[in-house]
Amino acid sequence: MSGGLTCAWNSEEALHGLAGSPGVNFAASGEWSYATSFPAPIVMGAAFDDELIEKVATVISTEARAYNNVNRSGLDYWTPNINPYRDPRWGRGHETPGEDPFHIKSYVKSLLQGLQGGVNPQTLKIIATCKHFTAYDIEDWHGNERYGFDAIINSQDLAEYYMQPFQQCARDSKAGSFMCSYNALNGVPTCADPYILQDLLRTHWNWTDPGNYVVSDCDAVQNAYLPHGFKPTREETVAAALQAGTDLDCGQYYPLHLPDAFSQGLFNETVVDNALVKLYSALVRLGYFDPESSSSYRSLGWTDVSTPDSENLARQAAEEGIVLLKNNGILPLKVPDDNNSQKLSVAFIGGWANGTTIMQGTYAGPAPYLHSALMAAQNRTGINALYAGSPGDPTTDGYPRAIAAAQQADVIVYMDGPTTADESESNDRNLIRWSGERIDIMTQLAGMGKPFIIAQMGDQIDNAPFLKHENVSAIIWGGYPGQAGGDAILNILTGEVAPAGRLPVTEYPADYVNQVPMTDMSLRPNKATGNPGRTYMWYNNATLPFGYGLHYTNFSVSVENVKGNNKKSEWAISDLATGCSETYKDLCPFLNVTVSVENAGQVTSDYVALGFLAGDHGPSPRPLKRLVAYTRLHDVKPGSSSKTTTSLSLSLGSLARHNERGDLVLYPGEYKFLVDVPTAAEWTFALTGEELVLDKWPQPRGRAGT
Amino acid sequence: MSGGLTCAWNSEEALHGLAGSPGVNFAASGEWSYATSFPAPIVMGAAFDDELIEKVATVISTEARAYNNVNRSGLDYWTPNINPYRDPRWGRGHETPGEDPFHIKSYVKSLLQGLQGGVNPQTLKIIATCKHFTAYDIEDWHGNERYGFDAIINSQDLAEYYMQPFQQCARDSKAGSFMCSYNALNGVPTCADPYILQDLLRTHWNWTDPGNYVVSDCDAVQNAYLPHGFKPTREETVAAALQAGTDLDCGQYYPLHLPDAFSQGLFNETVVDNALVKLYSALVRLGYFDPESSSSYRSLGWTDVSTPDSENLARQAAEEGIVLLKNNGILPLKVPDDNNSQKLSVAFIGGWANGTTIMQGTYAGPAPYLHSALMAAQNRTGINALYAGSPGDPTTDGYPRAIAAAQQADVIVYMDGPTTADESESNDRNLIRWSGERIDIMTQLAGMGKPFIIAQMGDQIDNAPFLKHENVSAIIWGGYPGQAGGDAILNILTGEVAPAGRLPVTEYPADYVNQVPMTDMSLRPNKATGNPGRTYMWYNNATLPFGYGLHYTNFSVSVENVKGNNKKSEWAISDLATGCSETYKDLCPFLNVTVSVENAGQVTSDYVALGFLAGDHGPSPRPLKRLVAYTRLHDVKPGSSSKTTTSLSLSLGSLARHNERGDLVLYPGEYKFLVDVPTAAEWTFALTGEELVLDKWPQPRGRAGT
Repeated sequence: MSGGLTCAWNSEEALHGLAGSPGVNFAASGEWSYATSFPAPIVMGAAFDDELIEKVATVISTEARAYNNVNRSGLDYWTPNINPYRDPRWGRGHETPGEDPFHIKSYVKSLLQGLQGGVNPQTLKIIATCKHFTAYDIEDWHGNERYGFDAIINSQDLAEYYMQPFQQCARDSKAGSFMCSYNALNGVPTCADPYILQDLLRTHWNWTDPGNYVVSDCDAVQNAYLPHGFKPTREETVAAALQAGTDLDCGQYYPLHLPDAFSQGLFNETVVDNALVKLYSALVRLGYFDPESSSSYRSLGWTDVSTPDSENLARQAAEEGIVLLKNNGILPLKVPDDNNSQKLSVAFIGGWANGTTIMQGTYAGPAPYLHSALMAAQNRTGINALYAGSPGDPTTDGYPRAIAAAQQADVIVYMDGPTTADESESNDRNLIRWSGERIDIMTQLAGMGKPFIIAQMGDQIDNAPFLKHENVSAIIWGGYPGQAGGDAILNILTGEVAPAGRLPVTEYPADYVNQVPMTDMSLRPNKATGNPGRTYMWYNNATLPFGYGLHYTNFSVSVENVKGNNKKSEWAISDLATGCSETYKDLCPFLNVTVSVENAGQVTSDYVALGFLAGDHGPSPRPLKRLVAYTRLHDVKPGSSSKTTTSLSLSLGSLARHNERGDLVLYPGEYKFLVDVPTAAEWTFALTGEELVLDKWPQPRGRAGT
Repeated sequence: MSGGLTCAWNSEEALHGLAGSPGVNFAASGEWSYATSFPAPIVMGAAFDDELIEKVATVISTEARAYNNVNRSGLDYWTPNINPYRDPRWGRGHETPGEDPFHIKSYVKSLLQGLQGGVNPQTLKIIATCKHFTAYDIEDWHGNERYGFDAIINSQDLAEYYMQPFQQCARDSKAGSFMCSYNALNGVPTCADPYILQDLLRTHWNWTDPGNYVVSDCDAVQNAYLPHGFKPTREETVAAALQAGTDLDCGQYYPLHLPDAFSQGLFNETVVDNALVKLYSALVRLGYFDPESSSSYRSLGWTDVSTPDSENLARQAAEEGIVLLKNNGILPLKVPDDNNSQKLSVAFIGGWANGTTIMQGTYAGPAPYLHSALMAAQNRTGINALYAGSPGDPTTDGYPRAIAAAQQADVIVYMDGPTTADESESNDRNLIRWSGERIDIMTQLAGMGKPFIIAQMGDQIDNAPFLKHENVSAIIWGGYPGQAGGDAILNILTGEVAPAGRLPVTEYPADYVNQVPMTDMSLRPNKATGNPGRTYMWYNNATLPFGYGLHYTNFSVSVENVKGNNKKSEWAISDLATGCSETYKDLCPFLNVTVSVENAGQVTSDYVALGFLAGDHGPSPRPLKRLVAYTRLHDVKPGSSSKTTTSLSLSLGSLARHNERGDLVLYPGEYKFLVDVPTAAEWTFALTGEELVLDKWPQPRGRAGT
């Protein structure tokens, strides 16, 4: 092919920047030896900033095209991972934007816009692969391995929760590719399931553009044979997968067994032809067969990789995602801004304090640099940075040096939390608490009579022992903040940037892991099984709730008016359905709610406006509330003169709920619109008349296996 | 000190050879860069050869002294690990000789004889540390971490099972040191428990020789504070540990908190003095303060390390421990012994086929060499060795090359199983079965119409899918066979050495892990909890039982006579107790049972004579049977003219059982003496009269914590 454009079927990863993977070939040093390494999706999710996500995705696809132009990568990437973060133990939760389906959909919409270069653009910039389709969110919990797990999920939970991000991907954002998963759904391995690969994905969601193809997760086709035991022979297994619509097998099972399956008459040639046509059509849509002049993507080069703007964006993404969980007033730190004053001595202690590669999380590539918090502090005027690493392993060996560093300091920053050694692919967590040894040293340090600040990194753990502890001055959550993570954390601590991130997941109490097995996929509380409910929608005893996040200032918010319907508080369902030309009725606009936001404090700050719905409508049980809209306002200045408004858009889909069949239905009843966490403003309205089905969910086929 | 003799309190490890650890300093290359690396204890346990164990331990202590003489190691070693291998999931089970307490006691007796240079010798060769005292056998199962686990065990199970190896260590073999463990026992962290550290260890077992000291596992003292929460303050915690009898803290908790605890008046100076006296007395007993001429140990040097004899012993230990589990006649392989004949093509396939360091297991040091099975085959006249590594990761990537290698071969050897990545410190297993992906490729290879032999390595997994499978020709178990593991396996496969090892643990069915939580410490079956029973003594549905092992020949055994009591089959308990001068009545001899052994086949072979007791005596429930004696006969030649006898010695202790208080009692009733697995010979006798307490178990103190 011309111009160095290549397109390999090797796996290529780009979860939060071009990542080390068989299809991405970094140089050992110099040019092409790195790419921008953004925060993990869980941190970018915490930013609740869709524009940010599109910018990040645009950088990623630009860098991917640049690498492709010099034969260092292909153009189909196995990103995003959009299984909702259902259980806090999931080892790959940090690969996702969080637990809420509306939030994930908004994130994915922006992400795919940036990755693919638009919705159905003339030339696809790269192909995004939405994974893992579907109901994949267990790695290996108590011996329940992903390769053989059978997720039992009713149509209501499936339609309302597990499938929502994939609907966005396929139907609305037109992802080029889907990946079927290791697990089975209600008895059928997903890669061999015509119900989800045909009835839902291709028929119901009209995912039939040229080049739309399904790839298996690596060896998911083999797994359908063993351990799933879905078909009695290897040949019947590959035939079932191919016929169900798995076009490409990451693995050797198609090459090894399709020939014999064909000889046995288990499928006909048309099925193979269809798969091949899709794969080649994908190349066509990427411009693979076009002349080099046809696309500006083909001129991207090394100077387009890791640009100053991209570097700033990586730092900004981390800053926006950091969440302030507690502050007794110590933050922001008062750091002298000249070299003449007495410096502020800050002890950085803990396993993450000088962490570099651990900041990247999983599916990361080599970064241009990795700035730990310690490094950032060492380079900051006015700070005298002290350091003591992890207190542990064997645990107390580091206690004396931690105490010695703390003794010399004015302020103690303790930076620790789980890493990908604790939570990653094939590795779910059993525990979501701080260990006894950590609580011991942390409370010893906190008891030294100095300000004690915790930067809790990695995925959520129960911070209850410190949220309540009078000696703990402040807590921030930093997740996996990427190449500039330490810069971002220091900027938040010192107030260069004001924190405005929100928790993208529930912070559960430590005992939650004893209350429900990971294998129980139900979202709703269930007295019979003891399931206390999952996510902020159904679980009410969080240590800290989804959407929580403090600021360095105070915001005052109110529901100002309802655009074009200032006085109205009741709508007839029959009126709402008319006059909308959308193919999918859930996309029909309802109205925009205007929320006024005033910064009532002293510090300029971003503000995330979160809009939820609650109230008596639709089938019981009813969720505590559910997210239906959000925006992020930037740099809101203090004072009433700077009071501003933002518009939270509601569609018919955001009002509707799913019935037990999985149908999306607009129900009459009372609706409460709630702003912020905890609720800071509220507006109540009503829908009247008969219920209206917006989307009729295809019912499962017979679930017979062997 | 003189002559380079050093004695550091750093941790030194020598589980199965001098091991990498803070107190053992290997050179990067050349002299002092390695030591003999024997098989893991589980393999040496499978040999059931006490003389072998003493020889191995003698090599280890000799090499330790040699290293000490050049300042490269100390003289106190944290070996052996003798917690009985109670649950197949335990990550450190392979560090132990197996699941049976009598077997462990015999092993430990020989081991300590070799390590310490005798029982209470003039100069201790090295100090052995019996660990982990006590009831430690969970790493991290479903979030139950060893640091905070509270083992609930009744006096009967404690005395009969968990404590037996430690009684051998302290009372009978006079180990120099003990290590208290991370876990609690019935509510009290072991390092702070005067019941086990004083009442049992020092008072009941008279473990009060000069220099006998207790060291904590690393940070077990800190763990007594958190997560155990045994005392409300750090000071009270260290005071409790010191006063309970933990003389040395591996960790910083004593140095950090003993001064304040002393200031608070929580202990007096005598307690510290006592601990110090013990530690210095240990040095005295090692000859640390003696002139260099005082001990032949001081002249050991590099020429005494990894000698040809030691190398042979390491290979022999592996050969003796390998267990033949299935053989349809393919083994031993017929290999031409010259270069003129057509070579036998053998495909070595699987993750262990060319495994080197994985053969060493955990707590290993650099070896002089590491011979994989593939290497051994490549050096063997008459074999054309083909190779394909692991079929996996992603799983099917290696399928084609495995199939290609098998297609070229006359015989397929598939070598695989768990490694220390699956089972190790802090890492219990959830699953004890072959994965679906492995069963898939193994049955594909087995179905190619060629002899298919499995070498199952690592700890036990359920081989049921292959034991029953008609296409699987033979199965051997090789565990972690050490530096010469591949040589040993090839020697067994080709018949240079005949296999005679026996399973030192029960091979449980895969579903066993769903039948009882690891945290249930009870041994006896319990209908209320669903516990199906633990070990061959209480569990009757094994895939393969403890003591199982086939040969390349057939042995015919019978109980020949009872030495000096030829006709007798009934004894009065009152007679048995008289005339024995042993301090501990359980050590009084009962009699020696003579077993005749005839090799009825064609191949010279070792034979392990196992003697069990069963029958109606003592408290219900009664064990299915229990091991009371064993010996290993070497090189038994075929034919009736070579028929031989062996003597299995019984003591009063081997007849006795434990009551619910933990007392060891001689009970009237019927006794069945069973030889071999499955039982090949049987002899019944009876005891009459009143029951007699041989050992009165000290009852627990009040178990109050905070």
